[in-house]
Amino acid sequence: LVRVEAITVGKELLTGRTTNTNATWLGKRITRLGTTIGEITTVDDDLGEISMALRSSLSRSSDFVIVVGGLGPTPDDMTLRGVAMAVGRGVRVDQRALALMKDHYARRGLGGVVFTEAREKMATIPEGSTPLRNDVGTAPGAKLEVGNSVVFCLPGVPSEMKSIFLSSVEPEIRGKVGTLHRSKTTFRLEGIFESDLAPMISKELREHPGSYIKSHPRGLREGVSRIEMDVAVVRKEKRDGDAEVGEIVDHIVSRVVEKGGKLKQRKGGQPVRRGG
Amino acid sequence: LVRVEAITVGKELLTGRTTNTNATWLGKRITRLGTTIGEITTVDDDLGEISMALRSSLSRSSDFVIVVGGLGPTPDDMTLRGVAMAVGRGVRVDQRALALMKDHYARRGLGGVVFTEAREKMATIPEGSTPLRNDVGTAPGAKLEVGNSVVFCLPGVPSEMKSIFLSSVEPEIRGKVGTLHRSKTTFRLEGIFESDLAPMISKELREHPGSYIKSHPRGLREGVSRIEMDVAVVRKEKRDGDAEVGEIVDHIVSRVVEKGGKLKQRKGGQPVRRGG
Repeated sequence: LVRVEAITVGKELLTGRTTNTNATWLGKRITRLGTTIGEITTVDDDLGEISMALRSSLSRSSDFVIVVGGLGPTPDDMTLRGVAMAVGRGVRVDQRALALMKDHYARRGLGGVVFTEAREKMATIPEGSTPLRNDVGTAPGAKLEVGNSVVFCLPGVPSEMKSIFLSSVEPEIRGKVGTLHRSKTTFRLEGIFESDLAPMISKELREHPGSYIKSHPRGLREGVSRIEMDVAVVRKEKRDGDAEVGEIVDHIVSRVVEKGGKLKQRKGGQPVRRGG
Repeated sequence: LVRVEAITVGKELLTGRTTNTNATWLGKRITRLGTTIGEITTVDDDLGEISMALRSSLSRSSDFVIVVGGLGPTPDDMTLRGVAMAVGRGVRVDQRALALMKDHYARRGLGGVVFTEAREKMATIPEGSTPLRNDVGTAPGAKLEVGNSVVFCLPGVPSEMKSIFLSSVEPEIRGKVGTLHRSKTTFRLEGIFESDLAPMISKELREHPGSYIKSHPRGLREGVSRIEMDVAVVRKEKRDGDAEVGEIVDHIVSRVVEKGGKLKQRKGGQPVRRGG
């Protein structure tokens, strides 16, 4: 399995000023590629914390670590120094990064902008890293190979993060994962308690190793318990995955019906062959 | 400083199915108490991952660790076992937890419900821990003291998490933090680039140790750069904190105006005394 971790940097995530929707977006994209983020760490704008978080991620044999946020010009933007510190390297002004920034300013009709210390900071990346073109904003991303791991540093502004992820990160993860298909479906059950579902889920998990079956309680409506269910498997062939998901759903639904509950709704995923 | 960390458990947070709004809510509440969450770790429904995440948090001398999610009846709910494993303890069915659950069912007119294995699992908590009453749902929380740290385990359903946090967690954090006041303000600048703001922010951070000054770029509108600014300080006296925030804002705004930018908007916080 390809292990991906994310480190999201910024005090605004810790104070609740900003909800970590970057993590949500990355989680969806990476899951769609056939793997899943293994762990997300959110740390403060602090050299030591950033550095420690990256060391921990690397110690868990992550193939890819995506570090988001803290690439800007202000003093609290210290991700690239933290990343360099974690792997025992220095940082230096990178000419390719400067060229990307000059190009960015020129496209916005700001060719004459002065490269102040704050601007030069955005082109100051860890030794041995490669700058990544930012088509949306100013600060380039950076890519750094550390042993068998690849560390990507992306800006925290969502549009910039997404743009660099799609152009520079996703292709590399896809290349490593290979072509895997994730078959999944979501459906809603009514009239059954999660406690009564639990043994049915255990049984299916035993019979379908590697499958993902999860219940999300959605409370009571007029005294009737409602539960949303996710079922997913990752398989080489879409056909095999879809069939297996259908089988799991069939088993669970028929046992729920025996217990007096019912299938309420399906959304997304493949149509499930019923009965038979 | 009182260190609080959060560990949010659940594959749905890693796949992007669910956005981690529990972390946002906790971040806001804890910041309002005069401290800040130091780190948020999001891990999978996996015994080893949960256990490792808690060990890491405890190794960072956290006063409080809030573990959210994974207290339910299904097989992927394994937080309490993971927590116990992290601190070298076992788990056992707790009579006080069972009583809380029976009380919960009785209130819902389900006094006769059978205590199946799945239900008993929700009353199976780490040895030496105290169950926490859940006024909203079934699974009790748990509180566990480990050395100088206190670990709270809360359900992942937002309404249940919030209810137990407010009744059982917040009072303890407040007691440890003491009465501190956080003065803060948010304002919007226009017509200045973040790179040009950076040295102004550095100067204020030097002159106001412990203050929090952060710029959030909000893109261009009709070619004009827009930036949202947060300024905050934590002080014993509200009066002192408000005055210091006002001073910082005055300094930054007057330098921004010198550079041709302007103050656009303020929201929240205390009115800032201008001029003088």
